Amino acid sequence: METNELQQLNQAVQAIMRQSRAQVLAQMGKQLTVSEKTSRKDLVTNVDKSNEHFLVHELRQLDPNAKILGEEGLGDTVTSMAGHVWIIDPIDGTMNFVHQRDHFAMMIGYYVDGTPTLGYIYDVMGDRLFAGGPKLGVTVNEQPLAAPADLPLTEGLFGASGPLLIHDRFQMQAIAHASLGPRIIGSAGIQISQVLAGELVGYLSYLRPWDFAAGRVLAETLGLVVSQVDGKPVNMLSSGAVLIATKSAQRAILTIVR
Amino acid sequence: METNELQQLNQAVQAIMRQSRAQVLAQMGKQLTVSEKTSRKDLVTNVDKSNEHFLVHELRQLDPNAKILGEEGLGDTVTSMAGHVWIIDPIDGTMNFVHQRDHFAMMIGYYVDGTPTLGYIYDVMGDRLFAGGPKLGVTVNEQPLAAPADLPLTEGLFGASGPLLIHDRFQMQAIAHASLGPRIIGSAGIQISQVLAGELVGYLSYLRPWDFAAGRVLAETLGLVVSQVDGKPVNMLSSGAVLIATKSAQRAILTIVR
Repeated sequence: METNELQQLNQAVQAIMRQSRAQVLAQMGKQLTVSEKTSRKDLVTNVDKSNEHFLVHELRQLDPNAKILGEEGLGDTVTSMAGHVWIIDPIDGTMNFVHQRDHFAMMIGYYVDGTPTLGYIYDVMGDRLFAGGPKLGVTVNEQPLAAPADLPLTEGLFGASGPLLIHDRFQMQAIAHASLGPRIIGSAGIQISQVLAGELVGYLSYLRPWDFAAGRVLAETLGLVVSQVDGKPVNMLSSGAVLIATKSAQRAILTIVR
Repeated sequence: METNELQQLNQAVQAIMRQSRAQVLAQMGKQLTVSEKTSRKDLVTNVDKSNEHFLVHELRQLDPNAKILGEEGLGDTVTSMAGHVWIIDPIDGTMNFVHQRDHFAMMIGYYVDGTPTLGYIYDVMGDRLFAGGPKLGVTVNEQPLAAPADLPLTEGLFGASGPLLIHDRFQMQAIAHASLGPRIIGSAGIQISQVLAGELVGYLSYLRPWDFAAGRVLAETLGLVVSQVDGKPVNMLSSGAVLIATKSAQRAILTIVR
């Protein structure tokens, strides 16, 4: 894809996300309809659904022949990364959205024949839109974002997952202890954006494709590494423990996990 | 103390905190001087010290005969809560201040003969100033804050401490598991302000006097409970595991801890 074409697409997607944010803020003024998906800790609201509906509709206009994978299932059934694939999370951190009205994100990742191409993470209440990809660089609210320093695990705060830390999966307690301290926000989008901004040295959580599709594009563009917790490459169509970190922190974490 | 006099004091302290915030923001544009206190996870910076110096100086002007207890030791040695006592934390969440340039707070608590009288928590980067006390109510940026709903532990997110969760002190893992999920921000001030705002159903951490002096005043004013982790009353001149929660969540937590 030509850089010029990508730049236009990038502008169009950012415009869609700003419109989506305005709609979500308006809906937050009204009563939410909340239901449980798999458990009392896994929620979905009318806003997740209506926002996915909106994003799918808008992306179809932009890229009619693409496949769209959405968390709430309002897009396509996607079984291959061939061609143009959009992966979207309309509200990431729904628990926070419901109980805090803060600390949630919208995310869109764009892959072309499996290649990470464009990524978007929008911290809705903080009004910080991370956007870009390998050919364009990364911006925050349209200002260029510099790559974070390659800090070692011992010199940074670490983004943890509550369940993994409590149950000490993947040596999460030892990893957190080796870092300057664990932080748990409850939104992959927000925590990955903090890694991008250099506020965390890494983030490890059990993630589904829409939780890290956008973050992978942005992180790799900034020289961060994205892998499974054992260091193997991620697969964009499956779920698992995913690590997003500086190169130095990744090396230390792989040593702890093995 | 007359309500009128308290209102004047309340306005004066808020003005001092806004001035303090402006100074801290200006200092953040320059190089920080960071040193370790008790360990690599316990930092102090030139800004903690200069801001405590400023706050002590300003509070002395306002209340010349009071005693002032400050985290960095630039106030008085305080061995009794008799008379007027100000307890201040110039930068709460210094680790976040250094590594995230976000998620830190300034706090001031005011006690008269041991009675919680005025409290201030300023989320510096979020620009949210929680202020008030039992005779004045609580405001956020001068707008009245309603008391949060008395949610049970099972229906809210829980503010945890990293070390207590990792080492499972005080059954912190069971408490977090019973809630809708743990959140770890790394600043007592920010996490207590989230309890005040109804975004967390409670917060448990090992705290020193300046970590909870302000929060106790504000929380009790809003009908929340503040106690040691065994349910006993807190002592403002000693450190320990302190729980700030809704009444319902406190009942559930005391059952888990015992």
